[in-house]
Amino acid sequence: MNAPTESFVAAAARTAPPELIDALRHRFGERCSTARAVREQHGRDESPIDAPPPDAVVFCESTEDVAAVVALAQRHAVPVIPFGVGSSLEGHLLAVQGGISIDVSRMSRVLRVDADDLTATVQAGVTRKQLNEAIRHEGLFFPIDPGADASIGGMSATRASGTNAVRYGTMRENVLALTVVVPDAAEGSRVITTGTHARKSSAGYDLTRLFIGSEGTLGVMTEITLKLYPLPESVSAAICHFPSIDAAVRTTIQTIQLGVPIARCELLDANTVRAVNAHDRLGLRETPMLLMEFHGSVAGVKEQAETVQQIAVEYGGEGFEWATTPEARTRLWTARHHAYFSALQTKPGCRSVTTDTCVPISKLAECIEATVAEADASGLPYFLVGHVGDGNFHIGYLIDPAKPEERELAESLNRKLVARALQLEGTCTGEHGIGLHKMGFLIDEAGAGAVALMRGIKRALDPANIMNPGKIFAL
Amino acid sequence: MNAPTESFVAAAARTAPPELIDALRHRFGERCSTARAVREQHGRDESPIDAPPPDAVVFCESTEDVAAVVALAQRHAVPVIPFGVGSSLEGHLLAVQGGISIDVSRMSRVLRVDADDLTATVQAGVTRKQLNEAIRHEGLFFPIDPGADASIGGMSATRASGTNAVRYGTMRENVLALTVVVPDAAEGSRVITTGTHARKSSAGYDLTRLFIGSEGTLGVMTEITLKLYPLPESVSAAICHFPSIDAAVRTTIQTIQLGVPIARCELLDANTVRAVNAHDRLGLRETPMLLMEFHGSVAGVKEQAETVQQIAVEYGGEGFEWATTPEARTRLWTARHHAYFSALQTKPGCRSVTTDTCVPISKLAECIEATVAEADASGLPYFLVGHVGDGNFHIGYLIDPAKPEERELAESLNRKLVARALQLEGTCTGEHGIGLHKMGFLIDEAGAGAVALMRGIKRALDPANIMNPGKIFAL
Repeated sequence: MNAPTESFVAAAARTAPPELIDALRHRFGERCSTARAVREQHGRDESPIDAPPPDAVVFCESTEDVAAVVALAQRHAVPVIPFGVGSSLEGHLLAVQGGISIDVSRMSRVLRVDADDLTATVQAGVTRKQLNEAIRHEGLFFPIDPGADASIGGMSATRASGTNAVRYGTMRENVLALTVVVPDAAEGSRVITTGTHARKSSAGYDLTRLFIGSEGTLGVMTEITLKLYPLPESVSAAICHFPSIDAAVRTTIQTIQLGVPIARCELLDANTVRAVNAHDRLGLRETPMLLMEFHGSVAGVKEQAETVQQIAVEYGGEGFEWATTPEARTRLWTARHHAYFSALQTKPGCRSVTTDTCVPISKLAECIEATVAEADASGLPYFLVGHVGDGNFHIGYLIDPAKPEERELAESLNRKLVARALQLEGTCTGEHGIGLHKMGFLIDEAGAGAVALMRGIKRALDPANIMNPGKIFAL
Repeated sequence: MNAPTESFVAAAARTAPPELIDALRHRFGERCSTARAVREQHGRDESPIDAPPPDAVVFCESTEDVAAVVALAQRHAVPVIPFGVGSSLEGHLLAVQGGISIDVSRMSRVLRVDADDLTATVQAGVTRKQLNEAIRHEGLFFPIDPGADASIGGMSATRASGTNAVRYGTMRENVLALTVVVPDAAEGSRVITTGTHARKSSAGYDLTRLFIGSEGTLGVMTEITLKLYPLPESVSAAICHFPSIDAAVRTTIQTIQLGVPIARCELLDANTVRAVNAHDRLGLRETPMLLMEFHGSVAGVKEQAETVQQIAVEYGGEGFEWATTPEARTRLWTARHHAYFSALQTKPGCRSVTTDTCVPISKLAECIEATVAEADASGLPYFLVGHVGDGNFHIGYLIDPAKPEERELAESLNRKLVARALQLEGTCTGEHGIGLHKMGFLIDEAGAGAVALMRGIKRALDPANIMNPGKIFAL
């Protein structure tokens, strides 16, 4: 591992004292680990940042377990950091101030499926694929797909979205209710519930939405009630090749502006297509490509697909390939789902500095064009993928972690991109969260006044600052 | 007017001192009124509760105006109460602790329409009808329709929804960004912005959603950026009569469970149909009725309508009447939009105690059946309308305000209904908000722990408790 990135590591870490470790061992036995390998596995994520690992890891199996860890940590004023599967991209899991990692991966029970109400309640460690396996026989699915087989808890904490958000929304729109463990000065911790199983409510402050996207800084979500959707009668996926990224983006913009209820609309640049071809021998033409999916009735899907095909052809799209069987669709989607790891393999030993801007759809072509020009001029290898139907795209700059100048170059390119996205009235992060990596951008985007409100909420709910401290804003 | 309802009026009102009134007059001239008629008009709403009027009304024309009022009020620790069109049903506008009414009705400019991004930014006093007039020529519409021609600010403050929510969501899902005036200990007030024009973001706490539904208790929303939708290629409305409320509700449940993307699905009971017939001479059959609307392509609408018609016929639905022209649709929708005022006219001088429970769709038939049985047994006249596609329905108990026993009977029936809805995992308020009327229910629903968190947020953001105090929770 590299030296800790100084700027993110607090001057005064709040290392867990021996009495806390003893108390955790007494309560959890073997489920509390201080083994170096376990701690290191819990102290890193997919971000290019290194930090010291947590002081201990507790494998929780219930809300009561989580409440016990938070209560003990609160009494010792030691940080806690929730951990799902470790697929965060923004340093959310790093123990920058020391503390206890709360691993919820064993909280993997689908507690209820209410098929008649199109809802399910899961423990936080359930992954999206596991949930979909559990509900498929009911004719239902959960659409949010950030690529990684992330935990529902982690997806909730980062307000994740991914490929289906253009039609089904993000975690913001798809969580109905939560069980959350929050710190409490008197009791150590408290278990609260937010929301109900009703589809809508005007009952008080929207605590559900406050926790969604709070990145573990306000509480630990332990149970999550989600909206489900009937499996569409018909699903059709298609790829289409374009002469330029711009042509693919303009096809997307017109599709959205016409109100076509497209379910997925993903851009892959030629670099990405080359990488997945090398990784999976897919034999795709190595040009910019849109990967689309349509959901609905047989007639509705046909109608949507025809409309989009007409638009694409106007912009020079060709080589349409359709897939209506699950197997054929899986082959097409392999290209998208393997993009990140395929790209990493094009430069052995590299890490990716991954951008996450999202802009209004009318500004997307302008934003991507200028960004690609800068990336090409930089000489750094990169790949570009995008949830372009939402105006959200990612450039992954592939850097050699041993060369600080490459990281700095990638970061400077990201700074330019974020400045552009904000100037176009967009956001620095469409779906990955602020974490450690984007704290400066948050102030640029939201303004000091709004960030002061966020800090005020954090201080009110977590006065000892034990919940994943040092993330979103320095405090 | 009746005597103030003691329980809602604070023991120690914080009446605006003469120096504050003078300062407001100095800043706003004629736009600051202390005339009794003006104050009384701003001190009541559609709720059956009376309270003293505010001490003054300021007609604001800009965010800066609102910031000036809040700053002056903050310095004197006097409450402020935002006022849109006065269509609240839960006592939100009542000056239970005295203070200044901030009337935003002159903030009625549509500031921007970004047709290519399907967004618009409006001042808080713009009403939903005004917005729809302004965007129709662009081929766009804003779907949220709570019945009343409410202000967008008021709709945001109460997390309103109404007839189109089953397809398009509520204000929660349809606001992208806000400009908000918040109190500030040092400066008196501050103007912050939340959100961006991007469709999604993971940048920090979701302050937008925190203000949506905060009922004026955290800040005054002055500018609101909304999602718009392309006017559907095809719109078709239909009414269908049913032998019982239960048959209509079961038709709705099956429609939702099949995933039919119905745009509106409204229930009117026979009492309501009788009232609108009397009011508008509509000549409708006086049985329970569903009023439905389908949006989409020509083929899609036809497909949806056929599916629902098949379901309805299975449950004994008959007398289908279709309307595809705007004029014919308006006639059908008159029945729904005039329901409230038509019902009031069936008992001259009455007020309505209006319930607002929302339950999971699978529990809706059970909830409505028991509630109607109680209403019938009570002897109080009532009407029932429902956004049944969401599981949300309203009973309006028509009470003589001079007879406290009628109000108490209506309130006791509502208490039974809320207890039932909560037991069925629903909410005490689907769309009207807590206001004064449902504070006890909020604790039953959310639990003391969650309400304590809400109070903590309120104290952190508004330590002097000047923002619409005494609403949502006693503080």
